[in-house]
Amino acid sequence: MTAASTGSAERLDRVRRAMTEQGVDVLLVSVGRDLPYLTGYEAMPLERLTMLVVPREGDATMVVPRLEAPRVVKQPDVFRLRPWEETEDPSAIVAELAGPAGTVAVGDQMWARFLVELLALLPRATFRRAVDVVGPLRMVKDAAEIAALRAASAGADRVAVQLHAGDIQLIGRTEADVSADIGRRLIAEGHDKVNFAIVAAGENAASPHHHAGPRVIGEGEIVLCDFGGTMDGYCSDITRCVVTGDVPADIAEAYAVLHEAQQAGVAASTVGTPCQDVDRVGRAIIAAAGFGDFFVHRTGHGIGMEEHEDPYIVEGNGRPLEAGHAFSVEPGIYLPGRWGMRLEDIVVATDDGPDPLNAADHDLIQV
Amino acid sequence: MTAASTGSAERLDRVRRAMTEQGVDVLLVSVGRDLPYLTGYEAMPLERLTMLVVPREGDATMVVPRLEAPRVVKQPDVFRLRPWEETEDPSAIVAELAGPAGTVAVGDQMWARFLVELLALLPRATFRRAVDVVGPLRMVKDAAEIAALRAASAGADRVAVQLHAGDIQLIGRTEADVSADIGRRLIAEGHDKVNFAIVAAGENAASPHHHAGPRVIGEGEIVLCDFGGTMDGYCSDITRCVVTGDVPADIAEAYAVLHEAQQAGVAASTVGTPCQDVDRVGRAIIAAAGFGDFFVHRTGHGIGMEEHEDPYIVEGNGRPLEAGHAFSVEPGIYLPGRWGMRLEDIVVATDDGPDPLNAADHDLIQV
Repeated sequence: MTAASTGSAERLDRVRRAMTEQGVDVLLVSVGRDLPYLTGYEAMPLERLTMLVVPREGDATMVVPRLEAPRVVKQPDVFRLRPWEETEDPSAIVAELAGPAGTVAVGDQMWARFLVELLALLPRATFRRAVDVVGPLRMVKDAAEIAALRAASAGADRVAVQLHAGDIQLIGRTEADVSADIGRRLIAEGHDKVNFAIVAAGENAASPHHHAGPRVIGEGEIVLCDFGGTMDGYCSDITRCVVTGDVPADIAEAYAVLHEAQQAGVAASTVGTPCQDVDRVGRAIIAAAGFGDFFVHRTGHGIGMEEHEDPYIVEGNGRPLEAGHAFSVEPGIYLPGRWGMRLEDIVVATDDGPDPLNAADHDLIQV
Repeated sequence: MTAASTGSAERLDRVRRAMTEQGVDVLLVSVGRDLPYLTGYEAMPLERLTMLVVPREGDATMVVPRLEAPRVVKQPDVFRLRPWEETEDPSAIVAELAGPAGTVAVGDQMWARFLVELLALLPRATFRRAVDVVGPLRMVKDAAEIAALRAASAGADRVAVQLHAGDIQLIGRTEADVSADIGRRLIAEGHDKVNFAIVAAGENAASPHHHAGPRVIGEGEIVLCDFGGTMDGYCSDITRCVVTGDVPADIAEAYAVLHEAQQAGVAASTVGTPCQDVDRVGRAIIAAAGFGDFFVHRTGHGIGMEEHEDPYIVEGNGRPLEAGHAFSVEPGIYLPGRWGMRLEDIVVATDDGPDPLNAADHDLIQV
């Protein structure tokens, strides 16, 4: 963890102010990135409960399995530690710390199992999402966080440059092979962890979340590569498409539309613009070209300690962009059974306009 | 996925019978292994909801993001598909499919975010854990599942043999290096995925879930290696300790106790024995030797499609072992600031007695 992600008493103070404003009595965070954002410690996603209990006033307490307690770096100004023994019931400990609370905000990724247990232990409590109080803080990245995102994006860019340069052999290899290769390159370029490496060739590219498989890449095919990892606690995410050989005319034509739509989305990512307007700008261009039915997903997602977080760039999200919001702009066109394409950059909204963190060539490169 | 993990109408029928017996009206499974156990499909752990809705009677429906729908292998005899668009509310779709349900059982690892939404959408429902209806089925492994577990354990064993043979250089390398090396060997030995590779040297071994780090391994130290992965959908998990050079007398003495306790636990793993009795047998031996306060965790956990699942081998769990239960037997002794040790095998309870799946040498090998 870097300075950007060690957590701090200051962040906890800001969360408590948000709790007061929104009438939240107790905040409970477990698995997910809210916990490291506030404390520097990440809960293991296991059946043994780790949970930070933050009352609006009074000490925050981290309830942690005794055998994991040695992993926690103590921060007495942020939280105190409550290790629990294998024969104790951690949900009961959390319920007691929460007290006869009115409104309890729980982290999005907490296991439902523990919420089920808390429903029985706190029958008079009202539960809501912690993202309402922590999300707005995490959404606005500070300078250290933007620097971390920029470094991660630059690492992913270097892999995209290798892809464009033909350094990553495609023809004759399976998607799964190429995916593993891209993963190794993400690590070599400074990432600590590979989060995903979608490699989808030809008709497989029409499945936006295709799982790289045994299909061998041939000549004259579009190959969609969408990959990202975590570097010093912050995520990268980039999509570039290449063609193995001559570019078929229909693909070239559609890609020109996609390219225009993506660049228009980036240009529209200015402070004050509602998220859904960024989505609409690119979608209108794709629809005008007749591909509206084939752009089957939102334009983008926020990015930070998680690959996907607020703000989402989607119809229905009227939240105006603020300086420090970081998110993807990634329209796509998918023709089932034929081909698919997507183009993605990470962008930070700033008072000086959109700041794209990816600089790798945006053209459909022939490799 | 192999035959062992493709899901089937027969499994769903058995789940429905359990729902009837326990008065569960609707089962909701999302992230986690219940979903592939029943349908062959694993939900992506993302903010876009994937959820199988199983009413006690009538069709099961898989609610899935439209862009992930092409990933789902259709099984019309098991479930029908309900892809949702980016502008739809998937929780509302689930609530409608659930109907004005009385008792709703939810998967342990479902994101709490979706349960919070369902609490508001189904205000009259009672929520409980799906593990009550799916767990007992998943706990009893069939022949194909045991074969898959045996193959995974054999792969992990081969890596342990390499460790014992000195093929994995330890002295002068960091824990993190050795951890990555073990991970590569798990893959080379047939695993599809590395789930974890704890490497903890000297005093670090006293932290049972130590995260392999920059500490360089020296001479005359105990090195605890606990690693496992997934092969064809089923998990391996093994712990062996080695010493780099001469074995200090105190470590040799404690290890003899640990070894005896672990073998006693394995021997006690007979059909009909309550889980907690397997825990008690080894714990008594460790306590009698004066190390009772330093065995800070339960004896073991069930294993299958997940590294940790029912049955847990822990005080308080009176469930008798059944033929087909698969679980770890892994006592440990941890002296804070000095050293730690653990010895772990996977065992299947059978009508012919305990069937240990790991055969790698159980001694404290000098490398």
